[in-house]
Amino acid sequence: MPNLPPVDGARPGRGGRPRDPSRDGAIRAAILQVLAESGYAGLTMDAVASAAGVGKATIYRRWRTKSDLVADAVAELSSMSIDAPDTGSLEGDLRVLLHWLVGAVNGPLGAATLSLLSALPHEPGLREAFRSGPMDVWGATFRTVWERAEARGEVHQPMAGTAVGSTASAPILQRWLFSGEPVSEEFADEVLADVVLPLISVRNAA
Amino acid sequence: MPNLPPVDGARPGRGGRPRDPSRDGAIRAAILQVLAESGYAGLTMDAVASAAGVGKATIYRRWRTKSDLVADAVAELSSMSIDAPDTGSLEGDLRVLLHWLVGAVNGPLGAATLSLLSALPHEPGLREAFRSGPMDVWGATFRTVWERAEARGEVHQPMAGTAVGSTASAPILQRWLFSGEPVSEEFADEVLADVVLPLISVRNAA
Repeated sequence: MPNLPPVDGARPGRGGRPRDPSRDGAIRAAILQVLAESGYAGLTMDAVASAAGVGKATIYRRWRTKSDLVADAVAELSSMSIDAPDTGSLEGDLRVLLHWLVGAVNGPLGAATLSLLSALPHEPGLREAFRSGPMDVWGATFRTVWERAEARGEVHQPMAGTAVGSTASAPILQRWLFSGEPVSEEFADEVLADVVLPLISVRNAA
Repeated sequence: MPNLPPVDGARPGRGGRPRDPSRDGAIRAAILQVLAESGYAGLTMDAVASAAGVGKATIYRRWRTKSDLVADAVAELSSMSIDAPDTGSLEGDLRVLLHWLVGAVNGPLGAATLSLLSALPHEPGLREAFRSGPMDVWGATFRTVWERAEARGEVHQPMAGTAVGSTASAPILQRWLFSGEPVSEEFADEVLADVVLPLISVRNAA
């Protein structure tokens, strides 16, 4: 953890000039960029200041430690997530969600998430921010889609939290993290056609 | 990357005293231990020497850089993997494999693997060692189990590499990495009973 240079106020964001929310947004975007390019280990206050085009004192005035800064940036990942689609059918909703997931793992959201994964066991504050932020948002989005399908009568049993419910996203995440192969929308379509929809038919017929 | 202290020989493992294979094994085990406890960022030649109970010069004599050392240790992950089970039935084989996977993600193998994941995009040598080592071994183990099932007539189509084939391990890996919930053998049994076996029935009936 870097030593703190002298700051004006006793706590980040207090004292001195009022905070500029748009600058906060630029700094958060810079954190994600540095994370994606250099990883958690390469994330320094200096690198973030440089990527955001602000002075290091500006960073320290807002976040006292790297952990504070990253935890706040993790919340930013949540805002990069998709709202639950509402196409009128489970198949349509899942297709939108899975195509979004493919784009996410191949883009800055995926790169930043991957950069953080290994740090989670060693950084309790980061882990808590990640769980109560993006993981919770992603889980809630899938839950909403499943619950609407249940309300429409397309699925006859609750699916969120079950092994069957997990098969929509899990093959995509496994392919992303544990294979050298590209994660494509075609693969997402294969998951939907060959895994999720057949399993729902089986369960509904049971 | 740390600076290299002067070493006797020009290259690791050459010159000086002959290498002691059992000591190499102790060092590799120490690397995995340090990785699991401190993460990739916390992995230093010093920490490995201390965990292995050897002098730092011993480490530098064998591995010139942290990358060399980690790449070699990754190969060690492969040796912690399971041989393809051969119980005589696909269900039996998959149950053994999935229970092994549950134990793996909850143990040192999982902790070391998780510690490396985030570094893979930034470390080409490490990525290559990980892909051609443990990932390849794990993939081959599942492939063997699927191919034996095909040979016995239990599955009518090749499953390795398909979305359906990926559903055996993917829910377990997703739960491990992206939920706060424990990964248990009961969950593995749910994956087998509710996902994999029904999907195989559907495909065989098609």
